[in-house]
Amino acid sequence: MARVVSGYRPTGKLHLGHYHGTLTNWIRMQDEYECFFFVADWHALTTRYDDVAGLQEDINEMIIDWVAAGLNPEKCVIFKQSSVPEVAELSLYLSMLTPLAWLERCPTYKEQLRELKGKEIATHGFVGYPVLQTADIILYHGEFVPVGEDQLPHLELAREIVRRFNNLYGDYFPEPQPLLSPIKKLLGIDGRKMSKSYNNAINLSDSPSEIRRKIKMAITDPQRIYRTDLGHPDICLVFSLHELYSSHEIRDIREKCEKAVRGCTDCKDLLAERISDFHAEFREKRTQLEREPGLVGTILERGVEKVRPIAGATLREVRRRMNV
Amino acid sequence: MARVVSGYRPTGKLHLGHYHGTLTNWIRMQDEYECFFFVADWHALTTRYDDVAGLQEDINEMIIDWVAAGLNPEKCVIFKQSSVPEVAELSLYLSMLTPLAWLERCPTYKEQLRELKGKEIATHGFVGYPVLQTADIILYHGEFVPVGEDQLPHLELAREIVRRFNNLYGDYFPEPQPLLSPIKKLLGIDGRKMSKSYNNAINLSDSPSEIRRKIKMAITDPQRIYRTDLGHPDICLVFSLHELYSSHEIRDIREKCEKAVRGCTDCKDLLAERISDFHAEFREKRTQLEREPGLVGTILERGVEKVRPIAGATLREVRRRMNV
Repeated sequence: MARVVSGYRPTGKLHLGHYHGTLTNWIRMQDEYECFFFVADWHALTTRYDDVAGLQEDINEMIIDWVAAGLNPEKCVIFKQSSVPEVAELSLYLSMLTPLAWLERCPTYKEQLRELKGKEIATHGFVGYPVLQTADIILYHGEFVPVGEDQLPHLELAREIVRRFNNLYGDYFPEPQPLLSPIKKLLGIDGRKMSKSYNNAINLSDSPSEIRRKIKMAITDPQRIYRTDLGHPDICLVFSLHELYSSHEIRDIREKCEKAVRGCTDCKDLLAERISDFHAEFREKRTQLEREPGLVGTILERGVEKVRPIAGATLREVRRRMNV
Repeated sequence: MARVVSGYRPTGKLHLGHYHGTLTNWIRMQDEYECFFFVADWHALTTRYDDVAGLQEDINEMIIDWVAAGLNPEKCVIFKQSSVPEVAELSLYLSMLTPLAWLERCPTYKEQLRELKGKEIATHGFVGYPVLQTADIILYHGEFVPVGEDQLPHLELAREIVRRFNNLYGDYFPEPQPLLSPIKKLLGIDGRKMSKSYNNAINLSDSPSEIRRKIKMAITDPQRIYRTDLGHPDICLVFSLHELYSSHEIRDIREKCEKAVRGCTDCKDLLAERISDFHAEFREKRTQLEREPGLVGTILERGVEKVRPIAGATLREVRRRMNV
C-alpha cells in the first residue's frame, strides 16, 4: 500500500468544514493507503506562538473528533508532530537548501500575511512553514498527500525542495504526489469560509439545539426579503448546506425556495434537522469516547511507536548523505 | 564559574587569524569560566550545503588544532553541534517568534550576501542562522559569549530573541553577555583579511618552509620599490605581523624599515623565522596528537556526554512553558 502523510493543526473541536473538507477523505483513505495522520502542533505555533495555553486541550478535542468521525487507529497511524523531534532536524537541513525567495513567493504566505495583519506573524518560522511541511512528509517517505486545490503550490514547493535535495545528495526521497480532494470549502453562517477564527462555524459536536440556534442566524438569499419573495437558492448559503445534507430531496428544496412555497425559517429548520440527524451517530460515539480516560494518550503513544523508528532511519540516512 | 558558550565552523586546519582572533582567547578563558566550545557543523551547512564531502575531515583537523594549541578537554567541554539534536528543536521554536525583518536587518547577513554573491546562499537556513546561534547559546544557558566587535549585532539579536521568549513564556533564559575579544583581525599575505577562502592564509600547522614560502609572496609597503627606498611600516602587512610575533624588538624593526637599513626580503625572512619559532611547540604537539588514533572521537564523545543532559533538561522546560 502506498503511504499517505497528512497533518492537521490542532484547532480544537472540528467543524463541518473540517469534516467535509478533510476528514471524510481521510476516513476513506485509511482503507486504501497506509495512512500517517498527525496533529501539526508545531505548525500551530507558527501563528499562535503567543497563545499556547489551550494547545493540549485543542489536541485532545481534535483527536476525539477524528476517532468519533471514523478514523480508526487500527487502520491508520495517528501521532503528534512534536513527538518526533527528528522532524525539526530534517527541517533544519532542508532550510539550508531552500531559497528564501521560494518561500516568499508562496501564495498562501502572502494571503495569510494579509488576513492576519495586525498580528506579528511574519516570523522566520512562519515563512518557513512549507519547509517544515516538507520535512513532515518526507521524513516518513510519504508518497501521497491529500490536498485541496489551494494547497497545490505548497506541495509543488515540497517537490522542488525534494528535487534539490536529491540533486545535491543523490536520489533518496520520493517526490510526494497530490491526492486532490474533491470537496470544496464550506461556508460559515456569515457567508465567509467556515472557520473557527471567523466565529461562523458549526461544530461536529454541536448539539441539535446549538445547530438550530446557529442555522437560525445564518444569512440567506439577500434578495428574498419577504416570505412571499421568490428565492435564489444558488446564492443562498442555507441551500449550499442542503446540497450536502439533503441531497435526496434537493430538487424539492430548490423548487420550494424558487417558488416561495417554503419560507427561509422553515427551510432552516429542515436543514438544522438534517445536519443533526447526519451527525447523530458521531455525537453518540463522541460521548462514549469522552468517557474513556487516557484514550487520546494511548492512541498517540501507539502512533509514535510506529513512526519514530522510520524517522530515525531516515535521519541516519540523511546525515550519511550530508556527511554530518 | 560563569558559563561561556562559543562555536566555530569546521574550517579544517586553522590559520594564524583563527589563532590570534579566537583560539588564544578560548585558551585563556578555560581557566576562568566553565567553557562549552563546539564545532558548528550545522552552521557550516548554511554556506557549504553543496560541498559537504570534506566536512568530517575539516572537523577532525580543527579539533586537533584546538588541542595542540592548548585547549584542554579536561578543562573545557568540546563537542559537535550536530551531536545535540535538541538544538534543532529549540531553534525551530525560536524561529516561530523571531520576525524575519530582524534577521534581514542583520549586517553580517547583508555583508555575506555581497561577498558570496554568485553562490545561492540566500536560503531560509542562511538568513536564520542567528536564530540557530541563539539556540546554541541558550540551550546550555550560556551567560557569556566571546565575540569580536563585528559580531556584536548578532549577540544583540540573540538577546532580543531571549527577551521575546522570556516575555512570552516567563523569565527562563539569561540574556547572554558579550566578552569582547581584544585582538583585531589578521591580514593575509595579499593584504585582505586572512581567510581560507581567499587562499591568503598561513596555517598554524604550516612547516617552517611553507611559512617562509608564503611570507616571501606577501605584499609589502607599495611605496618601497627599491631596496634603498625608505619604508612605511604602518601600511606594511609584514610589519603588522611583526607586531604580533616580534614585539620584543618591534622598535628596531620599525627603525630599520623606515631608514632602509633592512630590506623587505630580510625583514620577511626574520618574520618567517619568528612565526616558525612561535608555533614550533604547537607543531610538535600536533604531530604527537596525529599519532593518537580515535583521539578526536573520544574528546567529542566525552563532550556530548556532558552537554546532552543539560540540553535535554532545557528542552523539557521549554516544552512545558510553550505547552508543547
